[in-house]
Amino acid sequence: MKKFVNDVDAMLRESLTGLVEAHPELLRVEFEPTFVARRQVRAGKVALISGGGSGHEPLHAGFVGRGMLDAACPGQVFTSPTPDQMLAAAEAVESGAGVLFIVKNYAGDTMNFQMASEMLPGDNATVLVNDDVAVENSTHTTGRRGVAGTLMVEKMVGAAAEAGATLAECKALGDRVNAATASMGVAFTSCTVPAAGRPTFDIGPDEIEVGVGIHGEPGRRRAAHMPADAIVATLLEAILGDLRPERGRRLLLHVNGFGGTPLMELYLLHHVASRQLRQHGLEPVRSLVGNYTTSLEMAGASLTVTLLDDEFASLWDAPVQTAALRW
Amino acid sequence: MKKFVNDVDAMLRESLTGLVEAHPELLRVEFEPTFVARRQVRAGKVALISGGGSGHEPLHAGFVGRGMLDAACPGQVFTSPTPDQMLAAAEAVESGAGVLFIVKNYAGDTMNFQMASEMLPGDNATVLVNDDVAVENSTHTTGRRGVAGTLMVEKMVGAAAEAGATLAECKALGDRVNAATASMGVAFTSCTVPAAGRPTFDIGPDEIEVGVGIHGEPGRRRAAHMPADAIVATLLEAILGDLRPERGRRLLLHVNGFGGTPLMELYLLHHVASRQLRQHGLEPVRSLVGNYTTSLEMAGASLTVTLLDDEFASLWDAPVQTAALRW
Repeated sequence: MKKFVNDVDAMLRESLTGLVEAHPELLRVEFEPTFVARRQVRAGKVALISGGGSGHEPLHAGFVGRGMLDAACPGQVFTSPTPDQMLAAAEAVESGAGVLFIVKNYAGDTMNFQMASEMLPGDNATVLVNDDVAVENSTHTTGRRGVAGTLMVEKMVGAAAEAGATLAECKALGDRVNAATASMGVAFTSCTVPAAGRPTFDIGPDEIEVGVGIHGEPGRRRAAHMPADAIVATLLEAILGDLRPERGRRLLLHVNGFGGTPLMELYLLHHVASRQLRQHGLEPVRSLVGNYTTSLEMAGASLTVTLLDDEFASLWDAPVQTAALRW
Repeated sequence: MKKFVNDVDAMLRESLTGLVEAHPELLRVEFEPTFVARRQVRAGKVALISGGGSGHEPLHAGFVGRGMLDAACPGQVFTSPTPDQMLAAAEAVESGAGVLFIVKNYAGDTMNFQMASEMLPGDNATVLVNDDVAVENSTHTTGRRGVAGTLMVEKMVGAAAEAGATLAECKALGDRVNAATASMGVAFTSCTVPAAGRPTFDIGPDEIEVGVGIHGEPGRRRAAHMPADAIVATLLEAILGDLRPERGRRLLLHVNGFGGTPLMELYLLHHVASRQLRQHGLEPVRSLVGNYTTSLEMAGASLTVTLLDDEFASLWDAPVQTAALRW
């Protein structure tokens, strides 16, 4: 295993320290328990807290900042954070308007965030993200997995919270964005979890995993490698089959790299997906292309579509200042 | 070879189209000959044009926009662009104050940009970037290679041009930023050029290439894999040996991923490099961490240090709005 690492057990701490040192005006980090928070808390704003296993960077700590999250609780690589992290984060950033937890649907994450929610003295609510249309149940999941669409929920709810939305409004909005969002991905290679030291799964030189999960979990099927047009058609068929948008619908298209695929290919996917969406009579009017919800160095990518209305589009366009997303 | 591609010959065109479709407010693309330019040209500003082989995305087209480049001329993967591209780009963005070409020092690039410079009717000048301290001459180079430090030149000169600097001032500034900048990288894996279809070089499971070039060219030596602390010490010894900064000097630290290394590891490198720089009595006061000057999906990273004075720091901090860099 060749990685930039000193001691596998210290990897998360060294990496989070590096993140905060690179963005000192924006972020602070606490350890024991571990969370990353905005340096300045804004009083009277609903506090948005997310988290999950590490290895998906920049998700979630890279999305902490003005217009998006107030804090993120990173677990070890591909391992859920614990309730004490969420409680400490909530105590640090809660400022009188309650706490909204944004949680990807994995068994460990939902259990631990639920425990934190029950233990937290003040008002709180939870948005569960389950945008992955590949499979109904999976290795670590009852129901659909939460993947790259989590970014859309965090961005749009983040903008609403910044503009003064209440806890109930933020919760309802998050559920609506999640319902309007669907994703599916494909992997070319596995990743290697540092503590394991060897690839999570084996895959042949001409095979791809269609519908892969962001921890390398199996998807719908193994297939022979295909041209980009065919891969995109496969992913969009599943995504649009789930969302069932009417013709003429405006949408946000997110091409997400899993970490090991060059940007050149991600932009090519964006072109192919835009063209196919227009052929379906749809209008991709907002775009995001890059490595945002990764699986360490896995080669592959996912497509995410969010159906837009005026409210969602304006929440997407609202200013954001985080380590990984800013406009 | 598993890549997101339809037809290798159409890959660059499809990818550039995707880039521009994802950033329609910012960019436009022309083909025959190929260049990417700002959608709005600002009259009376020195026009900054860069370019080079593709496969290093987001460099350079991702740096076109307010506060940075006016146009970029992408060649095929790892292949120099041609003079007709540079001339067409110059004609499109020149607005009365002359053209500055920013060129990485590779034989093909320097030859073709020089030809364009001689053929261009109006005032023009060239900044040659050669920040890679790994080797003196190399596969495609006489003298040192231009690598990730090109971003610093493009950002700082871009800010100066936006603020009204003349062509002579931009040229002199670019040379000064280049002289204050040094880089070196290390690779864990090769990349695969699409048209070749197989890895550029072989490397053992426990070997690293110290001082690798951004096309996978050999560096100083093959070494056994090392902890991150030792890799950073090796790179910084070469970088600081070249720059020879006085104690207390403020600097910009850029950790650049080559495409296949997770952000978690890049932030870890940032932490280790910051700590070692402070141990050398230096002050890293600005940071940039991410995949900016890549080698397709190569695993590995480089460190770049730019010595800062007040002018450089304020040019770095100036607003920038491009696909890949914005603040």
